[in-house]
Amino acid sequence: MPNGEPCASPLELFNSITTQGELVRSLKAGKAPKDEIDAAVKMLLSLKMSYKAAMGEDYKADCPPRNPMSESNCVSDPTEAEEDFVDPWTVQTSSAKGIDYDKLIVRFGSSKIDKELINRIQRATGQKPHRFLRRGIFFSHRDMNQVLNAYETKQPFYLYTGRGPSSEAMHVGHLIPFIFTKWLQDVFNVPLVIQMTDDEKYLWKDLTLDQAYGYAVENAKDIIACGFDINKTFIFSDLDYMGMSPGFYKNVVKIQKHVTFNQVKGIFGFTDSDCIGKISFPAIQAAPSFSSSFPQIFGDRTDIQCLIPCAIDQDPYFRMTRDVAPRIGYPKPALLHSTFFPALQGAQTKMSASDPNSSIFLIDTAKQIKTKVNKHAFSGGRDTIEEHRQFGGNCDVDVSFMYLTFFLEDDDQLEQIRK
Amino acid sequence: MPNGEPCASPLELFNSITTQGELVRSLKAGKAPKDEIDAAVKMLLSLKMSYKAAMGEDYKADCPPRNPMSESNCVSDPTEAEEDFVDPWTVQTSSAKGIDYDKLIVRFGSSKIDKELINRIQRATGQKPHRFLRRGIFFSHRDMNQVLNAYETKQPFYLYTGRGPSSEAMHVGHLIPFIFTKWLQDVFNVPLVIQMTDDEKYLWKDLTLDQAYGYAVENAKDIIACGFDINKTFIFSDLDYMGMSPGFYKNVVKIQKHVTFNQVKGIFGFTDSDCIGKISFPAIQAAPSFSSSFPQIFGDRTDIQCLIPCAIDQDPYFRMTRDVAPRIGYPKPALLHSTFFPALQGAQTKMSASDPNSSIFLIDTAKQIKTKVNKHAFSGGRDTIEEHRQFGGNCDVDVSFMYLTFFLEDDDQLEQIRK
Repeated sequence: MPNGEPCASPLELFNSITTQGELVRSLKAGKAPKDEIDAAVKMLLSLKMSYKAAMGEDYKADCPPRNPMSESNCVSDPTEAEEDFVDPWTVQTSSAKGIDYDKLIVRFGSSKIDKELINRIQRATGQKPHRFLRRGIFFSHRDMNQVLNAYETKQPFYLYTGRGPSSEAMHVGHLIPFIFTKWLQDVFNVPLVIQMTDDEKYLWKDLTLDQAYGYAVENAKDIIACGFDINKTFIFSDLDYMGMSPGFYKNVVKIQKHVTFNQVKGIFGFTDSDCIGKISFPAIQAAPSFSSSFPQIFGDRTDIQCLIPCAIDQDPYFRMTRDVAPRIGYPKPALLHSTFFPALQGAQTKMSASDPNSSIFLIDTAKQIKTKVNKHAFSGGRDTIEEHRQFGGNCDVDVSFMYLTFFLEDDDQLEQIRK
Repeated sequence: MPNGEPCASPLELFNSITTQGELVRSLKAGKAPKDEIDAAVKMLLSLKMSYKAAMGEDYKADCPPRNPMSESNCVSDPTEAEEDFVDPWTVQTSSAKGIDYDKLIVRFGSSKIDKELINRIQRATGQKPHRFLRRGIFFSHRDMNQVLNAYETKQPFYLYTGRGPSSEAMHVGHLIPFIFTKWLQDVFNVPLVIQMTDDEKYLWKDLTLDQAYGYAVENAKDIIACGFDINKTFIFSDLDYMGMSPGFYKNVVKIQKHVTFNQVKGIFGFTDSDCIGKISFPAIQAAPSFSSSFPQIFGDRTDIQCLIPCAIDQDPYFRMTRDVAPRIGYPKPALLHSTFFPALQGAQTKMSASDPNSSIFLIDTAKQIKTKVNKHAFSGGRDTIEEHRQFGGNCDVDVSFMYLTFFLEDDDQLEQIRK
């Protein structure tokens, strides 16, 4: 699962817009299907929004940004128009409060996890909903009611999540889907598969196969430490499992037959200069959504419903998967989407392993963490001590407080700190 | 290994030219690398040549061919300018003598198998050269001298050939590479791997996975009947082997990282509407060229030279493979190229399983074969009995005689018949 750069530079954004504009024109000229054109136009608009958010002015063709190397261009005044950009490689907003997730639900066409759904989960499992549900950290879903129908009528389902092992050290943001997935496994008592996309990291990054595989092994240790049920959990590296499974490659090929380059171009923004490995990779992230990819777990059953807890930036992969599923005779996977874990510098970007100052790593010592938070964590403090005493800190933008909403279990204590 | 339609219809050709023209323009506009533009232009010119050969007039944009459904358009007067088209899916010429293979050597940049090389093979093996070498049926090569150097200095090498199982029945044309590969295995006493590209046939044809796999199993029986050394031969279906080998997928991903969509577009003519399976497939046909794809045979050796006997239409795959090899630290595979086995209707196209009347199948009875040859085989007979008696048949275009050059071992007897 790609978790790319925290912040595309203005020049990168400028170039992306130029490329995307060309794509839209060629799709229109080639009379491509309407939904493909629409997807490409949507992507173009998002890029232009991001560019305006970063530069404070509209994109103008043939007029590249000034001072393109300055990273600070990425973070503009929070009073600017709040425009968000989200795809599997880039998460960016101009608002210090972070992405506007309600708008994202509308844009992605998913459903909000509302009070009613949370109550239903509580009734079905007989457990208090996890704090990630109570606090809107898992905020969006696709077909979760269908999963609950299955559960209530004793039909089997399984969980699928994953990790793109881009470095040896995982950071706390990477843990969010795993913490929640462990809770889901506990309360529903179901099998879980965890994909380590070492092949993807090899394709996207400047890594050897052995390095990518080594990161997968190291990251798997951190994931195992989350405490999954060892009798119901299967963690695999793509590089290993593809050569070990009679079912996995067959599903990959089935998916690859039903997705065109035009489609992955529209969904992921691939270009003609991308390697054919990137272009076909989405099928590999899609395949674990189908139970027949795991004959050693599910026997010859091809119809077992899959539920995928993941950060919302992974949704494009699974929109594609859900589109393909009925055409190859499989059920669509259901999804639960989380918000992003904010970088120390603020919720404009997500925490990213490629920027050590933005991240708290699982291998950091308590002292290192303290220093990082004190030095880098964006504060909700007011401009003067007087103002701060009078109005209190602004918890909506205070990164330390945001982290407490992820990790402090006690609702009362959290509310007290907020006040 | 694709062995597509025997003859693209004029309308298909017209559409291909239009698409290819667009590609060339977009590559130039996008300032693509020179070799990519050159490859695309070369393909465009080939298509235009084929169009002219089929229609007897130049391609004109926005002016599609008249009577586009008539198959007879495909075979024009042999006195027309002789223009050839060869790629993995289409083999076509306007000449009843067949493709001009000397021109093809120049176009593909391979080397002619000349008397000197044939003598060297004879010296190295101590065996009379196979009739396919004596008669120019295997006519072109890449790096065969390097293979002989290896052999003479007791370095190991191995053979790789394959088959795209598009139907249950194989025809005699399919046997040519296998007959020759068996001879190579006998005289050099080396390991052989045979790839059945059932995944490719699933991606290209209107087949289910099970059907494609079934054809692979059926075809494997015919191939086994050629009599390969059972202790030195490994036949595999891609759909099976990908899920069984620790080395195969790793090589596929390595290759996929080093080939862009622009490149496969230029080499194979893929378009944005092609599925991502087709686009990434060339890496799967490339992977058996590297010994590390077969750790069960070669242990951890990654440097064993591969020699690929195949029909010349498969060369684009291996030009790509040879381009990638040094960049991923592997030796380039060497190649031996055969001419095409002519269709019963004449050497303008190769024998194709998708046109039963063009083909003699391995399951045909002796009586069926006799009927097919008498009814369909293009004859070198003259216009009148008198002329025929005076000048004799024209062996250059007589399909029955061409078949004898493939299958009659005795050189003297063949020469006698020719006379």
